[in-house]
Amino acid sequence: MNESRSDVLARLPLREDLRGRTPYGAPQLEVPVRLNTNENSYDVPGEVVAAILDAVRQQARQLNRYPDREFTGLREDLANYLGHDLEADQIWAANGSNEVIQQLLQAFAGHGRTVLGFTPTYSMHSIITVGTGATWVDGKRGLGTENADDPNQFDLHVEQTVAQIEQHRPDVTFLCSPNNPTGTALDLEVVKAAYEATDGLLIVDEAYAEFARPGTPSALTLLPGRERLVVSRTMSKAFALAGARLGYSAAHPAVQDAIRLVRLPYHLSSLTQAAAQAALWHSDVLLDTVEAIKAERDRIVTSAQELGLKPAPSDANFVLIGGFADEKALWRSLLSRGVLIRDNGLPGFLRVTAGTPGETTTFLDALADSLLDAPVPA
Amino acid sequence: MNESRSDVLARLPLREDLRGRTPYGAPQLEVPVRLNTNENSYDVPGEVVAAILDAVRQQARQLNRYPDREFTGLREDLANYLGHDLEADQIWAANGSNEVIQQLLQAFAGHGRTVLGFTPTYSMHSIITVGTGATWVDGKRGLGTENADDPNQFDLHVEQTVAQIEQHRPDVTFLCSPNNPTGTALDLEVVKAAYEATDGLLIVDEAYAEFARPGTPSALTLLPGRERLVVSRTMSKAFALAGARLGYSAAHPAVQDAIRLVRLPYHLSSLTQAAAQAALWHSDVLLDTVEAIKAERDRIVTSAQELGLKPAPSDANFVLIGGFADEKALWRSLLSRGVLIRDNGLPGFLRVTAGTPGETTTFLDALADSLLDAPVPA
Repeated sequence: MNESRSDVLARLPLREDLRGRTPYGAPQLEVPVRLNTNENSYDVPGEVVAAILDAVRQQARQLNRYPDREFTGLREDLANYLGHDLEADQIWAANGSNEVIQQLLQAFAGHGRTVLGFTPTYSMHSIITVGTGATWVDGKRGLGTENADDPNQFDLHVEQTVAQIEQHRPDVTFLCSPNNPTGTALDLEVVKAAYEATDGLLIVDEAYAEFARPGTPSALTLLPGRERLVVSRTMSKAFALAGARLGYSAAHPAVQDAIRLVRLPYHLSSLTQAAAQAALWHSDVLLDTVEAIKAERDRIVTSAQELGLKPAPSDANFVLIGGFADEKALWRSLLSRGVLIRDNGLPGFLRVTAGTPGETTTFLDALADSLLDAPVPA
Repeated sequence: MNESRSDVLARLPLREDLRGRTPYGAPQLEVPVRLNTNENSYDVPGEVVAAILDAVRQQARQLNRYPDREFTGLREDLANYLGHDLEADQIWAANGSNEVIQQLLQAFAGHGRTVLGFTPTYSMHSIITVGTGATWVDGKRGLGTENADDPNQFDLHVEQTVAQIEQHRPDVTFLCSPNNPTGTALDLEVVKAAYEATDGLLIVDEAYAEFARPGTPSALTLLPGRERLVVSRTMSKAFALAGARLGYSAAHPAVQDAIRLVRLPYHLSSLTQAAAQAALWHSDVLLDTVEAIKAERDRIVTSAQELGLKPAPSDANFVLIGGFADEKALWRSLLSRGVLIRDNGLPGFLRVTAGTPGETTTFLDALADSLLDAPVPA
């Protein structure tokens, strides 16, 4: 193989719309403080590790058999965890919420259909839309906000949401609450209005819901009577199980039946089902870290304000901080100090995950030091 | 929810091409002898269970972190297992070979493209093709075979393969060796000729390769110099790990780079990577069952012939048996005797997995009993 891989790739019969693209993915760098992918910084507690091992032990001998294609026990446990009188037949799960979303788009979007999301938002929504052949429409947030520094500029309001849905008539609409990377939860009036405005599917991505500030309701409360509404969740964040890859959704059972038409059979391994169930049986222990993370999140907001920066209000385990004169230089400066955070490509903004108290202190110290070299513009 | 789920589904904004379809999947029935999904009937050996548990133990505490997106260690271990001087950058893996195939079709097929397979073959090839938006062309096998009872009627020959490729000019062509559900391995001359005849991607599905009769070469030997050739494999069959969901492929590194453009990031969990690696480190122990299964497979062929039936020559862990007057009645008769096998929808044929000696005996006894009620036609 003397030729370069990219030369060969250029010659392969790849789809034309994929040519020149690069794979999605945050840098996988070895640094002391990793606050770039909104992981939960706390290790899985020993009690939960023991439960997962026990669950795997019970499955391992029978791994010669295909898993339960309907992951019945896991769906029951997820319904119990979510509450809101949800039942197992309203639940679906897959290898990460990315796969849940891909399955939804295969069933309800795909070639010739249109998907609307309001950017900046979770970038996989558009990537999976394109990967499954549909057309992505880049909806806008915060229309009418005059000040680029306004930390509320990314809020999504009823009128602008409805207007864009009526304009584009999407087959699938994404809302994201709390929104990634901006961090703020959505007023449920927006979800209600969006549902009324569309004949298509409405997906509310609530990956970070467990971190919301008190009094923030979930779109799960809106499911009764709304058969085209889907709420997606994940065990990667509050549950501290990013490595186990378990995303899930709640919706009308008929929506989940639609997913069964496109899902790959046996997509959830016996190990995944066992580990996720063991974690759900100990959700109280696992979710113990949520309050600690929220405290660090709030500390980041306060400290950033004190440094003259403009953090967006956050209901997530991360904070989007605005007000940087040169966010790319600041990102590099933090990295040189051993702190990896995320540049989402928004001019003037950087996103940081709320970690342990120690990680947060290291980040805030590195931030203050870096700002000495590159002060906040007046 | 007073309405039926199907009534609601009919009203949902589902893709039109999915309406009226039913989910793929063999019946999940509780019976004493399950020989319908080509699982490995042998439990995972204790030594391998221990290794898997140890590997999971080492990962469990850090499940709060995303897995290695590039599953580097696993790719190295898979390359070592396959041999043929393969290197890690030629390997890809996913949650079952179904997902490997879906990713290949997302990158190289999709809307507006054509995929050719030669039926009867593994039915997921066409299902995933349709699910990813491409057009499936149902190629034929054994053209010119006059006798419907001929057990070799499903063989694929060079001339008919090339002729169909030249006729349909597919973007992706599937070959399957040993072919499921017919069981016979492919002459590599067919693979070579198919590759020469197409400008598109050629996928050889070798899910059952480890069970081939002595002297059957793998299409892996053809990879050097063929950058559009992909060989897919699985750990679900010979490795007895259907429950762990690990499929993989070998190809030019540029093909795997193309897959990176469509794969969902972190699609392989830390648990999946750990369990698969542990199994590969003990592949000698796991593959110990292969010879026993092949012996039962050969016993099924011989016994079926003695019963006046027409089994196809098998290089897999299953046998397609022809010559039934009413295969649906016989399938039910076996089920009533506690033996579940597979009706692949081929008139006159049924497929049975080669299990343990005890399972095989139970099946053969039930088969002989059933044939007393419904004799083989003269």
